[in-house]
Amino acid sequence: MWRWRRRTEVPLFVASTVFLGCYAVRILDDDLPQGWRDALLAVTYTTWAMFVADFAVRWRISGRGLSFVRTHLLDAIVVVLPLLRPLRIVEIYDSVQHRHEHARLSLYARVMSYASMTAVLLGFAGALTVYAAERGAPGATIRTFGDSVWWACSTLTTVGYGDVTPVTPEGRTVATFMMAGGLALLGAVTGSFSSWLIQRFALDEDRRPPGGLPGGLG
Amino acid sequence: MWRWRRRTEVPLFVASTVFLGCYAVRILDDDLPQGWRDALLAVTYTTWAMFVADFAVRWRISGRGLSFVRTHLLDAIVVVLPLLRPLRIVEIYDSVQHRHEHARLSLYARVMSYASMTAVLLGFAGALTVYAAERGAPGATIRTFGDSVWWACSTLTTVGYGDVTPVTPEGRTVATFMMAGGLALLGAVTGSFSSWLIQRFALDEDRRPPGGLPGGLG
Amino acid sequence: MWRWRRRTEVPLFVASTVFLGCYAVRILDDDLPQGWRDALLAVTYTTWAMFVADFAVRWRISGRGLSFVRTHLLDAIVVVLPLLRPLRIVEIYDSVQHRHEHARLSLYARVMSYASMTAVLLGFAGALTVYAAERGAPGATIRTFGDSVWWACSTLTTVGYGDVTPVTPEGRTVATFMMAGGLALLGAVTGSFSSWLIQRFALDEDRRPPGGLPGGLG
Amino acid sequence: MWRWRRRTEVPLFVASTVFLGCYAVRILDDDLPQGWRDALLAVTYTTWAMFVADFAVRWRISGRGLSFVRTHLLDAIVVVLPLLRPLRIVEIYDSVQHRHEHARLSLYARVMSYASMTAVLLGFAGALTVYAAERGAPGATIRTFGDSVWWACSTLTTVGYGDVTPVTPEGRTVATFMMAGGLALLGAVTGSFSSWLIQRFALDEDRRPPGGLPGGLG
Repeated sequence: MWRWRRRTEVPLFVASTVFLGCYAVRILDDDLPQGWRDALLAVTYTTWAMFVADFAVRWRISGRGLSFVRTHLLDAIVVVLPLLRPLRIVEIYDSVQHRHEHARLSLYARVMSYASMTAVLLGFAGALTVYAAERGAPGATIRTFGDSVWWACSTLTTVGYGDVTPVTPEGRTVATFMMAGGLALLGAVTGSFSSWLIQRFALDEDRRPPGGLPGGLG
Repeated sequence: MWRWRRRTEVPLFVASTVFLGCYAVRILDDDLPQGWRDALLAVTYTTWAMFVADFAVRWRISGRGLSFVRTHLLDAIVVVLPLLRPLRIVEIYDSVQHRHEHARLSLYARVMSYASMTAVLLGFAGALTVYAAERGAPGATIRTFGDSVWWACSTLTTVGYGDVTPVTPEGRTVATFMMAGGLALLGAVTGSFSSWLIQRFALDEDRRPPGGLPGGLG
Repeated sequence: MWRWRRRTEVPLFVASTVFLGCYAVRILDDDLPQGWRDALLAVTYTTWAMFVADFAVRWRISGRGLSFVRTHLLDAIVVVLPLLRPLRIVEIYDSVQHRHEHARLSLYARVMSYASMTAVLLGFAGALTVYAAERGAPGATIRTFGDSVWWACSTLTTVGYGDVTPVTPEGRTVATFMMAGGLALLGAVTGSFSSWLIQRFALDEDRRPPGGLPGGLG
Repeated sequence: MWRWRRRTEVPLFVASTVFLGCYAVRILDDDLPQGWRDALLAVTYTTWAMFVADFAVRWRISGRGLSFVRTHLLDAIVVVLPLLRPLRIVEIYDSVQHRHEHARLSLYARVMSYASMTAVLLGFAGALTVYAAERGAPGATIRTFGDSVWWACSTLTTVGYGDVTPVTPEGRTVATFMMAGGLALLGAVTGSFSSWLIQRFALDEDRRPPGGLPGGLG
């Protein structure tokens, strides 16, 4: 199991970057000749097939049933949504550090790395997909990739201006997942801050007696 | 008490699904002949009456006064809002597990099950009710059930695009409850993440000395 | 000090309800004859004067300087914003319970009482004030009190549809305070949920070994 | 190191206020003669150069490499974004207190001071910058500085009405950072409240037996 992972780590990461790149170029470059488009599509599907094969092999090696999917939920998700595949870079970096006996990243650093990278990747992949779905639609307000990125930012932070919004069913389906992602991102930021404050407070408590907030609430 | 609950569990869950189904079909199928509409309405009210009767019987058996309502708040709410009735499936699943001596769901799994199921049910029931209130209204922006679902998603995640919004008093009343639901959902997601991080940190602390976040805040 | 508070509690609470009622009637009833309007205005200012006098007397009795204002921040705020005065009902109920040797409200019940009451009062008072500022303005989207309440709900839950929004400087100033209130409300809901979960977890921990969430994060 | 900081503290704070003032006047005063505009621009760049010089000197004195930037992240950020420079006033106040042997601000007071000041400064600086980018743009909805402030408030609280939104690429870039700031602000408010409640609860627990929330969740 570990040997398989170690050997496939780097090629799979390259593949996931290639996947994202091909997907992006196909959507963003309108003047691409048909031959190139087909080539990019072929590369996209080939890399995707690699992810599926890797997951299948690892499942096989583990010799376990459905419980494998449950304990490798993130891996299963990135098989279905390969655009999020580069997320695994944090895990890889972490395991590399571990192998070299270095200190692993602290919990906050890991949560923040995951949260920021998920936000950026989810935003980029979502903006691409929504832009692809919306650009030809009648009555669409998302007309350029810039609009789509702007919309993605306002969605992931749960601000939601609504000046540009998807109007097609496909765009709105992707948008729903991005809203859920925004909710989770908010949870990660808030949770990290909250637990960091609690830890700081525990350290501070030794030096001073506990006191309440001002006002009549306490 | 427990015997009554065990016997009524399955029929009541079937009834709650039937209730939701009838309610949905009546609203979504515009071409339904009047005879069918009346039949569905009758089924809707019959199942609702069953919920009320079940609550009344359990209240009677408990031999308690108003304090019964206070300690069974969720049950009281689903009597008034039977669309949320299927929520009890988590509780049922949990009690079934308990009886068979299996491990009960962990606290996080339960909170996440409740939060996701509440979000889906509240979204579906709210989208149905708002759609029923809005579709005939002059100047309405919610014109299809798809619009209504899209609006429900953006409301429950507190994103709130505002490209489609209810304009009738009934629609807005339902919407207010859904916004409160979105606030609670956000609280549940954030709170779970926060407490999970705090717990993880406490475990991690044993292995490494405590350190702060970078920056001048500390 | 305590004697003064005990004696003035009930009359001041009645006065604060009268204040809110007069303020609401003056804004909502357009056909009110001028004589009545003047009478209501007089009552409004008289009750406000009572709040200021009460605060001044208590400050005097305490014999303290500015530190009195700091430790009675909520009291100082309701002197400036008497519309929020009824908020003190939770404190009064609490102190009454305390005197009668009953159990005081639990911390969660108190936080939730405060949060819900603040939300309802802030929403009602804010909707009134914004409606008063907006109804005559050119290009206003808030045209009825219903619109104003709808806007207040979407603001306090931080959903922010933006289908109706204040356009006058006064309306927007009030709106800014309501947005801050919504942020605080969200904090209260999330914080309560989070701390409740942590407490539950601590109770659960005794019965089962600690386990992480599924997925590769841990 | 400490001697340098103590000597430069006050002049640098004055410089940061001058920077913000010059920046604001240049944007807000349309009728300023060209001579004055050039003078303000010169002052702006001079003060900025002072911040850069101060950072460079402190880096030099520390005798450290890139790790200095990592442990002085806030300082590095305010060198790049000098509009946020006045943020350091909390730190200065804190260190002054420390020197005079007074009690330092409590952790909550510090977090709340930082959060409020960051919100106000980020809002003001962001509103200025967005206004400067938007006011000449075709199809802009942000036409006055008032609109820009209103937009900044709704963004930082993550309410996001969307009645006025930036349309230029520069304005939207600034807006993205403000949304991220809003997310962090929400995290700070929620996290503080959450950790405060957890601490209060721990204190309360000694006086009463632990009890759950009403309802069937537990």
